[in-house]
Amino acid sequence: MILRIDRLQTELPPPSDPDPAGAAAVQELMGGKFGEMSTLMNYTFQSFNYRYRQGTRPFYDLIANIAAEEYGHIELVAATINTMLTGAGGAGDSTAPDDALSGVKDEAYKQHYLFGGKGALPADSHGKPWNGSYVHSSGDLVEDLTHNYFLETGARSGKLRVYEMCSHPAARALTGYLLVRGGVHQVAYARALENLTGADMSKLFPSPRIPTAKIPECQPHIERGEHLKLYRFSPNDFREIVAVFNGQHPETGEALTVIDEAPEGFPPVDLPPQTDVFAPDYAPEEISEIAQKLRKAAGLPDKVTGVVANDGDGLVDKVKEKLS
Amino acid sequence: MILRIDRLQTELPPPSDPDPAGAAAVQELMGGKFGEMSTLMNYTFQSFNYRYRQGTRPFYDLIANIAAEEYGHIELVAATINTMLTGAGGAGDSTAPDDALSGVKDEAYKQHYLFGGKGALPADSHGKPWNGSYVHSSGDLVEDLTHNYFLETGARSGKLRVYEMCSHPAARALTGYLLVRGGVHQVAYARALENLTGADMSKLFPSPRIPTAKIPECQPHIERGEHLKLYRFSPNDFREIVAVFNGQHPETGEALTVIDEAPEGFPPVDLPPQTDVFAPDYAPEEISEIAQKLRKAAGLPDKVTGVVANDGDGLVDKVKEKLS
Amino acid sequence: MILRIDRLQTELPPPSDPDPAGAAAVQELMGGKFGEMSTLMNYTFQSFNYRYRQGTRPFYDLIANIAAEEYGHIELVAATINTMLTGAGGAGDSTAPDDALSGVKDEAYKQHYLFGGKGALPADSHGKPWNGSYVHSSGDLVEDLTHNYFLETGARSGKLRVYEMCSHPAARALTGYLLVRGGVHQVAYARALENLTGADMSKLFPSPRIPTAKIPECQPHIERGEHLKLYRFSPNDFREIVAVFNGQHPETGEALTVIDEAPEGFPPVDLPPQTDVFAPDYAPEEISEIAQKLRKAAGLPDKVTGVVANDGDGLVDKVKEKLS
Amino acid sequence: MILRIDRLQTELPPPSDPDPAGAAAVQELMGGKFGEMSTLMNYTFQSFNYRYRQGTRPFYDLIANIAAEEYGHIELVAATINTMLTGAGGAGDSTAPDDALSGVKDEAYKQHYLFGGKGALPADSHGKPWNGSYVHSSGDLVEDLTHNYFLETGARSGKLRVYEMCSHPAARALTGYLLVRGGVHQVAYARALENLTGADMSKLFPSPRIPTAKIPECQPHIERGEHLKLYRFSPNDFREIVAVFNGQHPETGEALTVIDEAPEGFPPVDLPPQTDVFAPDYAPEEISEIAQKLRKAAGLPDKVTGVVANDGDGLVDKVKEKLS
Amino acid sequence: MILRIDRLQTELPPPSDPDPAGAAAVQELMGGKFGEMSTLMNYTFQSFNYRYRQGTRPFYDLIANIAAEEYGHIELVAATINTMLTGAGGAGDSTAPDDALSGVKDEAYKQHYLFGGKGALPADSHGKPWNGSYVHSSGDLVEDLTHNYFLETGARSGKLRVYEMCSHPAARALTGYLLVRGGVHQVAYARALENLTGADMSKLFPSPRIPTAKIPECQPHIERGEHLKLYRFSPNDFREIVAVFNGQHPETGEALTVIDEAPEGFPPVDLPPQTDVFAPDYAPEEISEIAQKLRKAAGLPDKVTGVVANDGDGLVDKVKEKLS
Amino acid sequence: MILRIDRLQTELPPPSDPDPAGAAAVQELMGGKFGEMSTLMNYTFQSFNYRYRQGTRPFYDLIANIAAEEYGHIELVAATINTMLTGAGGAGDSTAPDDALSGVKDEAYKQHYLFGGKGALPADSHGKPWNGSYVHSSGDLVEDLTHNYFLETGARSGKLRVYEMCSHPAARALTGYLLVRGGVHQVAYARALENLTGADMSKLFPSPRIPTAKIPECQPHIERGEHLKLYRFSPNDFREIVAVFNGQHPETGEALTVIDEAPEGFPPVDLPPQTDVFAPDYAPEEISEIAQKLRKAAGLPDKVTGVVANDGDGLVDKVKEKLS
Repeated sequence: MILRIDRLQTELPPPSDPDPAGAAAVQELMGGKFGEMSTLMNYTFQSFNYRYRQGTRPFYDLIANIAAEEYGHIELVAATINTMLTGAGGAGDSTAPDDALSGVKDEAYKQHYLFGGKGALPADSHGKPWNGSYVHSSGDLVEDLTHNYFLETGARSGKLRVYEMCSHPAARALTGYLLVRGGVHQVAYARALENLTGADMSKLFPSPRIPTAKIPECQPHIERGEHLKLYRFSPNDFREIVAVFNGQHPETGEALTVIDEAPEGFPPVDLPPQTDVFAPDYAPEEISEIAQKLRKAAGLPDKVTGVVANDGDGLVDKVKEKLS
Repeated sequence: MILRIDRLQTELPPPSDPDPAGAAAVQELMGGKFGEMSTLMNYTFQSFNYRYRQGTRPFYDLIANIAAEEYGHIELVAATINTMLTGAGGAGDSTAPDDALSGVKDEAYKQHYLFGGKGALPADSHGKPWNGSYVHSSGDLVEDLTHNYFLETGARSGKLRVYEMCSHPAARALTGYLLVRGGVHQVAYARALENLTGADMSKLFPSPRIPTAKIPECQPHIERGEHLKLYRFSPNDFREIVAVFNGQHPETGEALTVIDEAPEGFPPVDLPPQTDVFAPDYAPEEISEIAQKLRKAAGLPDKVTGVVANDGDGLVDKVKEKLS
Repeated sequence: MILRIDRLQTELPPPSDPDPAGAAAVQELMGGKFGEMSTLMNYTFQSFNYRYRQGTRPFYDLIANIAAEEYGHIELVAATINTMLTGAGGAGDSTAPDDALSGVKDEAYKQHYLFGGKGALPADSHGKPWNGSYVHSSGDLVEDLTHNYFLETGARSGKLRVYEMCSHPAARALTGYLLVRGGVHQVAYARALENLTGADMSKLFPSPRIPTAKIPECQPHIERGEHLKLYRFSPNDFREIVAVFNGQHPETGEALTVIDEAPEGFPPVDLPPQTDVFAPDYAPEEISEIAQKLRKAAGLPDKVTGVVANDGDGLVDKVKEKLS
Repeated sequence: MILRIDRLQTELPPPSDPDPAGAAAVQELMGGKFGEMSTLMNYTFQSFNYRYRQGTRPFYDLIANIAAEEYGHIELVAATINTMLTGAGGAGDSTAPDDALSGVKDEAYKQHYLFGGKGALPADSHGKPWNGSYVHSSGDLVEDLTHNYFLETGARSGKLRVYEMCSHPAARALTGYLLVRGGVHQVAYARALENLTGADMSKLFPSPRIPTAKIPECQPHIERGEHLKLYRFSPNDFREIVAVFNGQHPETGEALTVIDEAPEGFPPVDLPPQTDVFAPDYAPEEISEIAQKLRKAAGLPDKVTGVVANDGDGLVDKVKEKLS
Repeated sequence: MILRIDRLQTELPPPSDPDPAGAAAVQELMGGKFGEMSTLMNYTFQSFNYRYRQGTRPFYDLIANIAAEEYGHIELVAATINTMLTGAGGAGDSTAPDDALSGVKDEAYKQHYLFGGKGALPADSHGKPWNGSYVHSSGDLVEDLTHNYFLETGARSGKLRVYEMCSHPAARALTGYLLVRGGVHQVAYARALENLTGADMSKLFPSPRIPTAKIPECQPHIERGEHLKLYRFSPNDFREIVAVFNGQHPETGEALTVIDEAPEGFPPVDLPPQTDVFAPDYAPEEISEIAQKLRKAAGLPDKVTGVVANDGDGLVDKVKEKLS
Repeated sequence: MILRIDRLQTELPPPSDPDPAGAAAVQELMGGKFGEMSTLMNYTFQSFNYRYRQGTRPFYDLIANIAAEEYGHIELVAATINTMLTGAGGAGDSTAPDDALSGVKDEAYKQHYLFGGKGALPADSHGKPWNGSYVHSSGDLVEDLTHNYFLETGARSGKLRVYEMCSHPAARALTGYLLVRGGVHQVAYARALENLTGADMSKLFPSPRIPTAKIPECQPHIERGEHLKLYRFSPNDFREIVAVFNGQHPETGEALTVIDEAPEGFPPVDLPPQTDVFAPDYAPEEISEIAQKLRKAAGLPDKVTGVVANDGDGLVDKVKEKLS
């Protein structure tokens, strides 16, 4: 089971200039073979299928716990894509059902508009849906850890390349963060293999051979030591990861540490409606009104209980105003 | 972000007679078009892509919160498949690398053994991988809710049919539980649509038109009122679901209620190694020994910290004994 | 546009002993690469995309008209599968939601029961969905005709092999008919190529090299000359096929002829409900009652206007009786 | 069985400026999950698999009859794509095998030129082939009708978005028409559910919540009452749809009516050859000459018997002239 | 470019009892994610895409040369499947077009008969086609070598499991050989990584942790030192593999060696026709006669020039006799 | 088994201006349905599955031998794509991990950069992976030859269209060569069918109906008679192709001839590193240094033993210089 916390693992900027082609590139980090859907689902299935947990608990705890962190990664990638698509396609003053999407007719990634609602799709940068053949759950612990080490290597490669392709602030905030955290997982699986077999994999780092430290957007995270920490994403479980995630970081020699609770996180930006794709509606103020009535009837306070990063922006009022 | 709790939403029986063909059928509830991967990922992506959250909070909270519950459903389906496959394929006393899998050569679902390790795959009952084209996230709230109502209808249909096909105790425990909980989600989306539009969908229930009450394995859950409750799967968020999930159950007229915390759950059964598929190893006692050393070095207590349903069974000792 | 006629192109027997494994084999003729979905969609798209129709009318008419006949072929394959699945899975007296499908748990083709309702799926004999990559519509007339000749060759091969695998009366009636009609299409495309280029392809027949005349179930159709006729499936169009479909049958030397209207066809058998898969309902008599009320309110006659092969069987009454 | 009528259900304009990117968008309406291939094949398979027809005839007739209309929809989408691609890629005076396709090298949808012949493909806006997993045919009547209502909702959403993206006259004529007719099907399935269960779904309309009346290209169709009529697409069958398709239009309150015959339709435009993709040939005048000889030999009249919208344009002569 | 040698890399037994279910399992080694199609195509594409070959020649030579050996592996897997399917499906004395395939109607893997001709398909054990997403060619050398090491690990796992499932002599001869040779490739990629980075991966062996030496069918190959040798599969190229493939075998400590030429190989068994699937024909003696005439006309010697393992069996005569 | 020769079947130019959109088009010739992966794998599987070889040797030899040539074709297509992508995406002086890929953000084919390393992928022009359903290996010789004739026809069509779309020198050199060689295979399969059945297919040539002689880039090959020769790609095998590949070329009437050895081929251009995609590394000079040390330790000569077309270019030095 999970408990869901409505916060992001890192802070993302609010929408600025839309970047449809960049959003298409970021899709590779969502639904590509080495995207976050893959890391999430690989570790999730491996943990579900893990046999003999009590006898080999630290390894189970490690995989299950990293799986939990990955959920937050697909959430971040989705938020980034939504941010980059906000405002895309606009044809000046035209509104639906006019030619309000004519501005993105030349984009290759048409399903962002025709099938989705300027949101993330579980698909790669060409629109090919993520599929379950990307999941490797052999049951064999050494084999699965070897896979996971490789998967994180490929994922790091993908993140670096998206970084190089996309300079949109949201894409950069995303990849800066994911490179650091993905790096931790890469180390974690290498450490698990080393602890389990006695191999020495430290010389394989970094792979690809660009030190994360060279990337400006990684700096704030490195300065906070995020490249060394494994958070425990559970109220009470997965306490035995300390038996595996330990020793030195293969690149820096610093001590790897386990943090006994999840990071606090950041409230997400509440993104504005996109009426040209009817998200959440052609006339969002109408469903907002209905929502307010339902809230009142249920005895909820006037102030919305949810926490978002841009409360002060008065998005609700702005939308009502603009759309009225 | 999520926190993961290492417990199952309902209790599953320990392994009994293996049921490979039944496990193949249960895969439809995992990776089929109407399986739990689909419900999980549909609501997850819809919540990720949800715009104008503050203005329409109750609907966002509803979708995001049900998404959280669905994670527990794929976990249950996986646990069921693992349970049903435990012991499958055995050829008497033979062990790997003998003909230890000859007993399942005639099974159609060969990838349970050749590709996975007698565990669940993100695939349907024919082995076709789940894929992202099963996810509908249009951005349009009414459209997405309509989809979700339909998806739960199709999912209920699938569960009923797996129930009829599989009498294995784990499959029955699973489907008995999922029928009740899926029914709640079906009602929740209908109520959301009704509250949002004014339509009256109550006469569509039950769909398929078999009352859940007719199914013996649903009884214990119905008696506890599980068919009426929506749990809030978050420490602090998604408080506004009460504004949408309310009124009467369309079949029984009982009051729908929101429970302000997640259910307590049940510890999972720790399933025994399957050495014929090297899960978690050809010689699990060896990696167990390594694990114990690592645990000790990390200062962990002698008693494993994880909680499983069958601690008392002495699985660890049994395995060591049998395999030594 | 099309007009639909609720009759089958050939007569199929009523359900007898169910044959689930045979029905799975017949799926290859539906959604396999060389199944009827492929012939239908290849010729349909080629006709839709056909340019310069007036200048080269006879070839357009030929392709468009054969496309129309193929619709009747997917209908026949579907009817056959439904017939062979009728009664499958029954566990004696048990009814849904009991273990009414336990009898087909060992079938490889589980989606006939879990996803479909004992009906045909647009998928092949392994459950792989038919897909549009099986369609070849290059625009180049000689190339498309070459493709079509090859496609019919592969389709004939598939039909022969299903024939050899399945002795169920419905499968035999189907393949006996399709072999004769598919043979006509194979000849038609060869004739088109010959007329267009001057090549002589007659020595390629039969391919595979088993004469249709050797197959008992083809005899009645051959005796009626069905191996020589191309029907015109249109009230007023496609009159110029005579310019292409002419000359001698490559195997027998008999004259090929165009029939200026569609065959009369045969009423379909009305197949009984399968309540274990809720088709059309768990309690079909209830929706029948609703239907009767709606019919009366609409001023329809008491006697159902649709024509089926087994009116006299009193299926409606039987079902009511059995289910009441 | 079907009879095919070589006319389109609505009038499309002749080719004007080519619009390759727009044609790629329109592909979503062909082979996307919510495209016309999906509506056609869903209802077609549901009708093929329908059991207990006599007992519940009005529902069978409704689904089977709408399936027939959908065939005309894929035809229209194909004609639109062909129209928009006519002339695309031209590099001034160059002809094959020169660089005649260099003008479309930068288009994302390269298979329109490299695999197809500037014609429609059974694929979506990214080139992903349509596949049979988009078909839902559960056998359960209420479930299938619920699906169909949802499918039409999603399809309406897709049409609106293509409308907004593409202002090419053919795309607008197409979507204007399809929005009206798809709206009728959406109503029809809602009415079927209401009549069958007693639910009240009228408040769900319109969904997405843009009234069709706001769209200029829908006006002529609405003025002719096309939003209220269900045509019977059969010479003699499907007479009982009147028992289901009745009552009021949920948005306007006008009476829904059944028209007892198919609409007359419009002759298609005969599109000119595209010699750069060899459609129908590199030298179309040569195959035209052969065709004329074959026609004469078959005793066909000098004037081509097929009817197209642009007979007077002298396309045949123009092509001969231009190409000679 | 390649030169093809019509010999197998190891000896396979002639057909004995057919084993259709076993042949389906062996398909996993052909078209599964970890099958030989994957190893072949991964290394082939990596070698095609390899940049800066002169600067880093030994690594290029290693990958390109192993790719060449893998071609022989798909050939062996195909030969095994053909061997195991020879004679399958026979219904006593019946011949096509009788019920000659009724004996395999209950097999799940129907496409061996309906789509292929009792031969190997580029598909996995469920019939899912191999696809290019299984190929990883990132361009990054360390990443690709890491991938290859993992791929060989997963492939070894698959081979072990097929071994355990299938005791048919051909399957055992195949897996016995492939386990030894795949082991060499696993070592080769580990050595490449070690030589390139300084990591020490030797403790990861064996993975899965069953020593090959425990498998009887591996013995003859191990005795000949096949677990230590890398053959150079080229007349003149790839001479620099010695710079990478060197040092000690991680399990045995024996010296790894490069053999400067390809192994001699073994002639394949000429498998008998299967007339029930028309392979190579319904009446093979007829095409044999045609072949003889063509051979004579071309001045070829009476004795067939090709070399097969069972020349002495007089297969040609036997077939003629049996079929005449 | 194969021996691999590190030479290309024709000469390709060195990199000039990058052409990313053109490279995407050329992918259709790699992984499209009619690409070289398809021709390679079709003939390869048909040869693997060929039964009764001794009895019908000339046909087996023909298919097996053409399969061998096709390996060289996928190699050429890959080399072309790599050539066209060399230098793509460059953002002036920026290097990884800067915005070094920003220059290709607007390309539709993003996986060339994000997933591959500016190399060829086993996918089509839309990025859809090649898959095994494109392989036809029915076992029936006449059917398979008919398929192969059609496949070569479709492949010729694809090559012509890529030719028209791409004027990049590498694309032109590729298509000029492949059109000639593919034409030989098209003739070979037609001749095989004619020799086997007595049909006369010569009038079907050329198809598409553009004579290869009209294409300037084909001229040098035609002048050397490459349109008439079938090379024997084997040291000792496949000697009986002469019995099938004989007679006249259907277009020119010239005599078809068998060349008893493989063509000499041309050394490939050694393409420079692309450090923005880490191919073969972020710092290629470092792995070059390691390679030199390993070479020396292995006793290899100072001069690299591999032969490439641009040895004299001093690529190794240039890279070191530029990157140091």
